[in-house]
Amino acid sequence: MSDSKFSYSLLATDAQTAARRGRFQTPHGDVDTPGFMPVGTQATVKGLTIKQLRATGAQMVLGNTYHLALRPGADVVAELGGLHGFMGWDGPILTDSGGFQLFSLAKMTRVSEQGAVFRSHIDGHAMELSPERAIEIQELLGSDVAMVLDHVLGLPAERAAIADACDRTVRWAERSLAAARRTDQALFGIVQGGLEADLRVRCAEQLVELGFPGYAVGGLSVGESHAEMCRMLDVTVPVLPADRPRYLMGVGRPIDLLESVARGIDLFDCVMPTRNGRNALAFTDEGTLRLRNARHERDPRPLEADCPCAACRHSRGYLRHLFMAGEMLGPILLSIHNLTYYQRLMHGAREAIGRGEFAAYRAKKLAGWTRGQEP
Amino acid sequence: MSDSKFSYSLLATDAQTAARRGRFQTPHGDVDTPGFMPVGTQATVKGLTIKQLRATGAQMVLGNTYHLALRPGADVVAELGGLHGFMGWDGPILTDSGGFQLFSLAKMTRVSEQGAVFRSHIDGHAMELSPERAIEIQELLGSDVAMVLDHVLGLPAERAAIADACDRTVRWAERSLAAARRTDQALFGIVQGGLEADLRVRCAEQLVELGFPGYAVGGLSVGESHAEMCRMLDVTVPVLPADRPRYLMGVGRPIDLLESVARGIDLFDCVMPTRNGRNALAFTDEGTLRLRNARHERDPRPLEADCPCAACRHSRGYLRHLFMAGEMLGPILLSIHNLTYYQRLMHGAREAIGRGEFAAYRAKKLAGWTRGQEP
Repeated sequence: MSDSKFSYSLLATDAQTAARRGRFQTPHGDVDTPGFMPVGTQATVKGLTIKQLRATGAQMVLGNTYHLALRPGADVVAELGGLHGFMGWDGPILTDSGGFQLFSLAKMTRVSEQGAVFRSHIDGHAMELSPERAIEIQELLGSDVAMVLDHVLGLPAERAAIADACDRTVRWAERSLAAARRTDQALFGIVQGGLEADLRVRCAEQLVELGFPGYAVGGLSVGESHAEMCRMLDVTVPVLPADRPRYLMGVGRPIDLLESVARGIDLFDCVMPTRNGRNALAFTDEGTLRLRNARHERDPRPLEADCPCAACRHSRGYLRHLFMAGEMLGPILLSIHNLTYYQRLMHGAREAIGRGEFAAYRAKKLAGWTRGQEP
Repeated sequence: MSDSKFSYSLLATDAQTAARRGRFQTPHGDVDTPGFMPVGTQATVKGLTIKQLRATGAQMVLGNTYHLALRPGADVVAELGGLHGFMGWDGPILTDSGGFQLFSLAKMTRVSEQGAVFRSHIDGHAMELSPERAIEIQELLGSDVAMVLDHVLGLPAERAAIADACDRTVRWAERSLAAARRTDQALFGIVQGGLEADLRVRCAEQLVELGFPGYAVGGLSVGESHAEMCRMLDVTVPVLPADRPRYLMGVGRPIDLLESVARGIDLFDCVMPTRNGRNALAFTDEGTLRLRNARHERDPRPLEADCPCAACRHSRGYLRHLFMAGEMLGPILLSIHNLTYYQRLMHGAREAIGRGEFAAYRAKKLAGWTRGQEP
């Protein structure tokens, strides 16, 4: 990378897959890859203090342009120390651009070449988000990595509409690069293209030509099958330069992460660990556990015997009680456990890649998840 | 005290008030008094992990017989390690008997000499709670201190009804003593008597005659004025033996605590720090702060500059944002701050008593609360 404040070091490549181990350096510290970023949409990873978040093993967290611009406002965040100072996280932060929320959350979004006009999901207030405005907001937030504003479509979609959104995403990416001013913030491009392999490839090639310090694969995890997602990675990732980090946005389940790592992805974010945790679902090496299930009532075992997290200091019976009694500590502890699980999964993946044994690691995890799956 | 596993050591008496500093020894450790017990009704202090609870400075916590008997059931708690093992708290625990919940929460409670019959507030299930059953449940829970089942009335009440409930409370206390089997659990009697000074005195005298290892003042904080509460303590506390701990149940605001300490109370419990914290109200030496107030939007200051808690690592602006955005971390952090505030208040009280300067300490705190009160 040209800017000395950011660099990606490739440390090891797996023997049998495209998995790679690396280190992404940012002004707020290093991120070991492949790595998982907990989602802190509104400047907080739901239910965790900063100390607890750090204890899960997280190195980099995600914030959201759309949400923070609406509330409390980018100027408030800037005045209170930028996103790092505001939320009290001194490690690396990536901010999403808001492209996904324009598609998933905002009301009456209309996209033109200039940008998107929409109504806030909070109070219906009319707002505008252009590529330049998305950069301006993210520069106020002061994240280490900003994302370009992209044009996201739901799947399935017409090929013509996908091609149009894809081309617009590239034009917006170019405008974003031209608008960016901060030298302590890296801007990542986002590959769109729905499930059209050739459009994905073309979009990636055009973005690479523009020259970003990192690339994301977007527009997945929006309703397509696991196989379709893998197929898109198979065609897209090889186009991306080996000396830049690759980030798969919004994905996913543990199996999605390992299959994507096998295809050369370095960074992930997803709400699953926290959202499922709040809903009493725990991830383990033996599959998922639904803690409200009566069979856990008197179970003295922790979720996982070897897990160092705060939840695993308690019995499954106690965790079930917390959910049955509607106690906040249930969602808190399961969010902590699930985030810890994801971090441990990625840590294990990095170790396996270092030994050239990632394929075996993936197979072993998959076998455990399949074997232990709760009926 | 007769049983060697429990003892109260009087360490210092204040020069100008009846405040006293002491140490209450239990099988799970010592409690410095005057001290505040956070309320963990359902085997969790709402929103805090055990590590966070310990970090507030809490030494002893409270659990509830009524709630835990209903859900998950005393046998489940016993099977999962007793209340200590179940919730993962290895310090002293006191369990309330359920008397207060029969009055405040249960449906269609009918009290007879035998005990109370009521319907669960959760599912309407009919249940019975007698003095003996309350002991049985608390022995299953395995708390360090159990409370006798008392007959609580709302205020105001007819003198005849108060006298009747008072006498019943004494008879039930005697039955409770006879029923108690565990030598590692101390049983506290509870003084009732409404706002009738002579009934309070008589009840206290009768309980002292029965000989408990500790005494509680109950039936306050149920609608009476601060002055009335103080008047009841003025007449009741002098009747209680100086070599046993004195516990004022369910009280209260910071000012209530200091006025009660001045009258010789050693132990407190109250939901105010956590309940108010969940509702965006913070206790400080400059009075209470309502964090949803717009004036905090851009305030970079912590709640209290010298507070070591996790909330005070953040700005008031950030805390306000969490509440406005409906984020769990707001209630969590304010619960932590308020519990820390109560512990620091009690710590300061103990230090002041040790120096014989408790009256000045109380006056200084009161001046701060009055001066800083938010409009």
